[in-house]
Amino acid sequence: MVVALLDVGFLGFDVFGTVVDWRSGIARAAEPFLRRHGLAVAPERFADEWRALYQPSMQQVRSGARPWVRLDVLNRESLETILSQHGATAGTIPATELDDLNRAWERLDPWPDAVAGLTRLKRLYPLGPLSNGHIAGMLNLARFGNLPWDVILGAEISRSYKPQPQTYLRSAEAAGLPPHRVAMVAAHNDDLRAARACGLRTIFILRPHEHGPEQRSDLRPEEDWDLVTDSLVAAADALGCP
Amino acid sequence: MVVALLDVGFLGFDVFGTVVDWRSGIARAAEPFLRRHGLAVAPERFADEWRALYQPSMQQVRSGARPWVRLDVLNRESLETILSQHGATAGTIPATELDDLNRAWERLDPWPDAVAGLTRLKRLYPLGPLSNGHIAGMLNLARFGNLPWDVILGAEISRSYKPQPQTYLRSAEAAGLPPHRVAMVAAHNDDLRAARACGLRTIFILRPHEHGPEQRSDLRPEEDWDLVTDSLVAAADALGCP
Repeated sequence: MVVALLDVGFLGFDVFGTVVDWRSGIARAAEPFLRRHGLAVAPERFADEWRALYQPSMQQVRSGARPWVRLDVLNRESLETILSQHGATAGTIPATELDDLNRAWERLDPWPDAVAGLTRLKRLYPLGPLSNGHIAGMLNLARFGNLPWDVILGAEISRSYKPQPQTYLRSAEAAGLPPHRVAMVAAHNDDLRAARACGLRTIFILRPHEHGPEQRSDLRPEEDWDLVTDSLVAAADALGCP
Repeated sequence: MVVALLDVGFLGFDVFGTVVDWRSGIARAAEPFLRRHGLAVAPERFADEWRALYQPSMQQVRSGARPWVRLDVLNRESLETILSQHGATAGTIPATELDDLNRAWERLDPWPDAVAGLTRLKRLYPLGPLSNGHIAGMLNLARFGNLPWDVILGAEISRSYKPQPQTYLRSAEAAGLPPHRVAMVAAHNDDLRAARACGLRTIFILRPHEHGPEQRSDLRPEEDWDLVTDSLVAAADALGCP
């Protein structure tokens, strides 16, 4: 048992990258779309480019430059940006096709260990996304991949985007617990740093292929996180979950 | 199959009375407390009195007389009111005891058909509370009674109390659906009337013993609700859930 985690009463999960494999899922959905529209970009590259606009798009909200909007709205705007960079004007592609491709973010496969690990963790801990995804997106992703959440917390209930403190603090409050009784589970050191600064406990899951074979970031824990493992099943082992 | 419900993509549940038996649960928790403090009131009567302050306490928020507060705060205040009516001043009872009794609202047994019915409904529909309960209360109640929610919607995400329209509308929006694709499931005609006025579909579950053997209200459907049944298992049957 990990002593620092003895008093934890809720596990909050980063989802994109930590629980689900967004890169393969987005590439899979993009491939027929790109072919149909004659766009000469590899699907994985397209996924990387789309994802690269994720942080800048949220930064507009974090900075106060624009009011709160849900992640699906930001992703949809970023999609049009990427398409225009490849010479496709969104106006020439039916909106329903773009909406459908945008919903690929709600049809992403869990990492192979995720459902088994979450199912075991749930035996001892209430679980939920503490993600920048919006509630409906997290709900649809859970239904698609059989993710056994108890509740969906995170950006939409706090109307803020991680790593802003209120996303963590409001989620802990909604779970009915002080921050030190919530553990943030993430594959990203930045996310855990911000969670720790708010008083949350920290569990690092190594996901060395989130960004594909060339991944350079988050290949090791950068601080002494309360627990470091390479899968959610290993996390369940470490936390003594049957 | 119920034609009006064919297009439904989310089931939102009233919880107190519809899914769980609050009266027995509160009476069970109150009995040793009342005995310990020499309060001569039957536990069921005490439960009824406490519950009778539920609507008036929320009305303070609905009317704008006080800003949004969670249901556990309102219940805690109502508890002190009831105790003072029985001659006990809250100040003479340790706050931890009152807090613990207040959390009896998070330890209520599901009606005998509830878990089996919800488990079957979940095979075809995403499910969640669309309740006036707060998120942590709903989460704890779900863990206590094994209620298989996908998400927790309702009062806290909308910062409003049913039957205010925004509680229903904001919950539908958070589920990612237009109101007509959400069904409200409730044992209370008033709740369904308000949900219908917002465009939601309506499922009435007859709970003739919610208020004990003398119940006078909600003994029959008062409008042509889209579905009327006497249990959640019967609702699963009617909706074709395996």
